[in-house]
Amino acid sequence: MSARALDYWFEFASTYSYLTTMRIEDMARARGITLRWRPFLLGPIFAAQGWTTSPFNLYPAKGRYMWRDMERLCAARGLPLQRPDTFPQNGLNAARLAIAAGADMPAFCRAVYTAQFAEGADISALSTLEKCLETAGLPLSLIERAQSPEVKQALRDQTDTAISLGIFGAPSFTVGKELFWGDDRLDQALDHALRH
Amino acid sequence: MSARALDYWFEFASTYSYLTTMRIEDMARARGITLRWRPFLLGPIFAAQGWTTSPFNLYPAKGRYMWRDMERLCAARGLPLQRPDTFPQNGLNAARLAIAAGADMPAFCRAVYTAQFAEGADISALSTLEKCLETAGLPLSLIERAQSPEVKQALRDQTDTAISLGIFGAPSFTVGKELFWGDDRLDQALDHALRH
Repeated sequence: MSARALDYWFEFASTYSYLTTMRIEDMARARGITLRWRPFLLGPIFAAQGWTTSPFNLYPAKGRYMWRDMERLCAARGLPLQRPDTFPQNGLNAARLAIAAGADMPAFCRAVYTAQFAEGADISALSTLEKCLETAGLPLSLIERAQSPEVKQALRDQTDTAISLGIFGAPSFTVGKELFWGDDRLDQALDHALRH
Repeated sequence: MSARALDYWFEFASTYSYLTTMRIEDMARARGITLRWRPFLLGPIFAAQGWTTSPFNLYPAKGRYMWRDMERLCAARGLPLQRPDTFPQNGLNAARLAIAAGADMPAFCRAVYTAQFAEGADISALSTLEKCLETAGLPLSLIERAQSPEVKQALRDQTDTAISLGIFGAPSFTVGKELFWGDDRLDQALDHALRH
């Protein structure tokens, strides 16, 4: 673990990861913190808890609140919000593409979250992902590379690492083994990275 | 619903309600907001979701994180934190006493949360509750009053009202029908109360 580095753990289906994805790069840069973008899958983590879908669907009161909370937070930050027809969406191919994008991952991630939560698009659709690659200025050839055994394994490994770090939701942040959960903890996590 | 009023919903077993209880009165007063303290029980709400205990016990990764998060937040705010042997504790009698305390509820609540989370005491024990009454300058005769049918019914009614407002966790805040969940949303809830 290098000094002034923060690992950003996110899942494409996660609403609150939209909030973080749209602001974390500027915030880290302003503090001179190196950011490592770490897509992972919450599905296996939820399944291990016996959940077959998002807790926001399993617990309707919590789900209703989450969408209202998102409305208020997006309005306060000047972020558009359009609730997609399907929630949670299958972010597997988006996550593989993000890994395949390498150094261009941040721009691609912002395009995917914007498509899903600002425009209500279906990010499991190939046509949506193609548009996101275009928005991020990336070649469509990444779609084939995203299906390579190396990329698939990298995403599995990353999810395993998330579990070993005690991650149970998204967005999460780690500085070494210190875990922070939720967009609400982004400032605290960045402060921690600065001091360690 | 009167202007500049905020309802504060809390459950005595809730760790994050400790954070809020210790600061909400000063924050509301500084903004000229009328605060209504509303103890309720999470037990029936959790039971309706099929939970037999706190989600922090049902989901160990989440529980470990919560205690670490509490450590960091308490340290940052200069609040002592001592993890009680039992979690969650049975806060039924504390909640009835809080209602019986009437206008002195805030001081009693701070004493109960301090006993539980700063000193690690068992708040289901009569001896602990007696000390809390003493700390708050209240008569021991409240213990009998707290077992009256009126107080018991008031707590049941309050829990029903919490459910009808969509409350699913503690601490929560409402301004009319607008719901805010978590100590992290206290500022936002107070700002909302000021504007409505």
